[in-house]
Amino acid sequence: MLNDADENLKTELAQFLPPRAFPEDFEPFRHEPRGTHLGQVGLVVAPASTDEVARIIVAAGAARVPVVPYGGGTGLVAGQVMPDGPKPLILSMARMTAVRAVYPVENVLVAEAGAILAHVQAAAEQAGRLFPLSLASEGSARIGGLLGTNAGGVNVLRYGNARELCLGMEAVLPNGSIWHGLKRLRKDNTGYDLRNLLIGSEGTLGVITAASLRLFPRPGAKGTAMMVVRDPQAALALLAMAQASGGVSAFELISGMGMQFLTEVGPDVRQPFDTVPEWTVLIDLGLPEGQSPEAVLEDLFAAGLEQDLVSDGVIAASEAQRNQLWAVRESIPEANKRIGAISSHDISLPIGLVPEFIARAGVELAAMGDYRINCFGHLGDGNLHYNVYPLRGQDRAVRMAEKPRVQALVHDLTHAMEGSISAEHGIGRLKAADLQHYGDPAKLAAMRAIKAALDPLGIMNTGAVLR
Amino acid sequence: MLNDADENLKTELAQFLPPRAFPEDFEPFRHEPRGTHLGQVGLVVAPASTDEVARIIVAAGAARVPVVPYGGGTGLVAGQVMPDGPKPLILSMARMTAVRAVYPVENVLVAEAGAILAHVQAAAEQAGRLFPLSLASEGSARIGGLLGTNAGGVNVLRYGNARELCLGMEAVLPNGSIWHGLKRLRKDNTGYDLRNLLIGSEGTLGVITAASLRLFPRPGAKGTAMMVVRDPQAALALLAMAQASGGVSAFELISGMGMQFLTEVGPDVRQPFDTVPEWTVLIDLGLPEGQSPEAVLEDLFAAGLEQDLVSDGVIAASEAQRNQLWAVRESIPEANKRIGAISSHDISLPIGLVPEFIARAGVELAAMGDYRINCFGHLGDGNLHYNVYPLRGQDRAVRMAEKPRVQALVHDLTHAMEGSISAEHGIGRLKAADLQHYGDPAKLAAMRAIKAALDPLGIMNTGAVLR
Repeated sequence: MLNDADENLKTELAQFLPPRAFPEDFEPFRHEPRGTHLGQVGLVVAPASTDEVARIIVAAGAARVPVVPYGGGTGLVAGQVMPDGPKPLILSMARMTAVRAVYPVENVLVAEAGAILAHVQAAAEQAGRLFPLSLASEGSARIGGLLGTNAGGVNVLRYGNARELCLGMEAVLPNGSIWHGLKRLRKDNTGYDLRNLLIGSEGTLGVITAASLRLFPRPGAKGTAMMVVRDPQAALALLAMAQASGGVSAFELISGMGMQFLTEVGPDVRQPFDTVPEWTVLIDLGLPEGQSPEAVLEDLFAAGLEQDLVSDGVIAASEAQRNQLWAVRESIPEANKRIGAISSHDISLPIGLVPEFIARAGVELAAMGDYRINCFGHLGDGNLHYNVYPLRGQDRAVRMAEKPRVQALVHDLTHAMEGSISAEHGIGRLKAADLQHYGDPAKLAAMRAIKAALDPLGIMNTGAVLR
Repeated sequence: MLNDADENLKTELAQFLPPRAFPEDFEPFRHEPRGTHLGQVGLVVAPASTDEVARIIVAAGAARVPVVPYGGGTGLVAGQVMPDGPKPLILSMARMTAVRAVYPVENVLVAEAGAILAHVQAAAEQAGRLFPLSLASEGSARIGGLLGTNAGGVNVLRYGNARELCLGMEAVLPNGSIWHGLKRLRKDNTGYDLRNLLIGSEGTLGVITAASLRLFPRPGAKGTAMMVVRDPQAALALLAMAQASGGVSAFELISGMGMQFLTEVGPDVRQPFDTVPEWTVLIDLGLPEGQSPEAVLEDLFAAGLEQDLVSDGVIAASEAQRNQLWAVRESIPEANKRIGAISSHDISLPIGLVPEFIARAGVELAAMGDYRINCFGHLGDGNLHYNVYPLRGQDRAVRMAEKPRVQALVHDLTHAMEGSISAEHGIGRLKAADLQHYGDPAKLAAMRAIKAALDPLGIMNTGAVLR
């Protein structure tokens, strides 16, 4: 059995930590962006070094106190809040924010777990390099949490998830030992892949304290276009054509419903087309210096027209226009929030099955009731944000009762079509039951065995991922 | 304690396996390419399905018999042979060779573990796609072994190791359960990364039975050049310039000693330059259809000349010339074999430290004795094959006594410079002691805990990786 993080533990920790390591306002640590869970907090501690993290974990283990590793608090599946059980020790990484080193020749940057993504991006840019991880919460999300949840975002198509951007890691394991694995090697076949095991384990197998991250050359020339596509199938065909010509870094699908939501509730952005198209794609290209992304996009548009895949399009002629087009895509989550979903889903599918999924899910939902569906997302990764809303003017609260049925329908179909019920957000506590339901039994058993082996006391983010 | 695989086990297995599942000639399974270890064999079994693999593992567990998963037998660190202890059951994947499916739209191919790499490459090509994993043994290496050892090769710079090319996996875990993880998703954040844990575990955590593999568009235009560089530092600078212009798929460093070995003992290949240069790089570019790799390589050469990085070069004007240039690189391992090394090393370093390593290792070795050093490899990955030879005309057998000292010098320096003592070959049995010596203690303890948790009987490739 585990215990509350209490004054005794604080006294213990205060023997080697200064007063500023103990934030007094617990309130910010109780909330998560979706508002689905309200966390308990016994104590918050913010260490300044990896050694301090190790000593904290040792003390927590000795006291049998659950520890919640805490980054920017931007996670969407309640992995950062413990709503029940003993009151946890919140281990905030907010004082470990250093970019320890940048190696431009090697395309490597070493950052501490508390470094904010936007700062890491800026440090890479200062060195003339690109750190390509990019997502809505980049102004507050921290490297440790981004790795702990294997974050995705808009550049996965070209550069991979957080997982693919991490070369090495320093971490404190649940027994308090420090793994000094901060290598910056492209190849290292010396034993089991502990790095990838910790990435995506959402703080349940240890605390990431620093990471060596991959950098890339900055694309010399960038281009952006929005094209109206006939349907999701046409979008896929256009994606294949774009990939053959190279340099595609983002390929986003936007539904007409998303565009209509913007008109209905804002945020106020310039609609790129006179009438709202049913399906649109947003394409980003990054090419080497001297090449013309506009020319490539024009060729792509012409080829798409000829094959009856696209019917209209806008190619950005300036950085300002690029930002305008992206503003449409980036405003959709805020519009979604203002409308208020009955149920939101972060799913992925085999890319070739995305059109069939969209068709089948629409039919099945229509058979269940009247809904508005905003389906958008990272088509290039097969990752859809498939969100279901009440009709205009309806009282959302009344229809929230349908949430379990809607979610089961979407997740059942996703599972039946060999997809994933969590593409990029992770499991946390929000989807822990779903993981039990949809997960492979052999894999779940292996996960439990690994968890018990590395964290026999069960102190690390207790209740997240595995219940 | 474990037992021999004997006639009793065979009788047990024969209840559900036909006679052709029991190859009678054990001899091929006793040898590995380096000739450092001679394996024992109790019984060889070659199942035809994943269910059969699972039943075999269950039977082996019940009988407490060690199991060696066996692919193409091409591994270079003796992971496929058990020289001592009880006689193992060799689990040959040679009858599970199907390419189960190809999804060109999704850039995915699903192959069984026994599929030979060259066949998988061909199946991808037939579908108009590229499976980029490529290495010397591709005519006999099998997918299961390539994933089990996280194989590297010449295209890692652009496409990654075997690890990065695997989207999903089917495997039999040490308790005989089947993990049905053959997803073909780009994003799937549902729990611990069992796939990457099995990749590179060298058969010690389970048997990979099939994998979903990533395909890529075939480059429309390919180009190859060999350039004489001033020194390794200049090679690095040239690499950075090449990467900025995009499309680099291989960037290999070749030392003058390697070229001289070819002259000395063959294989007979056309030397690209009149006098053997001290340092040469071999560059492969793959660009989209319509672009000119030759033009990019010419620009690179001109820029390299201007910055005094390169002094001579050959740009292939035809496929035949491309093959000629690659033949030089690909003949070096055979030449090495004919000369006979005192000690060979598969190491990696932070890319920026490669020149310093080459300089320091040369000085330190010279202080120890008179050697010839052939240092070559995948510079773009920081991966050197750093091989040490006797002088011309010397009796190798006499100098083999120096092997431990030479190896310790090279590995100590690699370790001190934050490199890896096994870049792409793995640990197997050849480097198990090195892993204990150089490995991070916290990571090693975690590896042991994971091994004990997933394979409590210790039957899976007993003695490989962890002793």
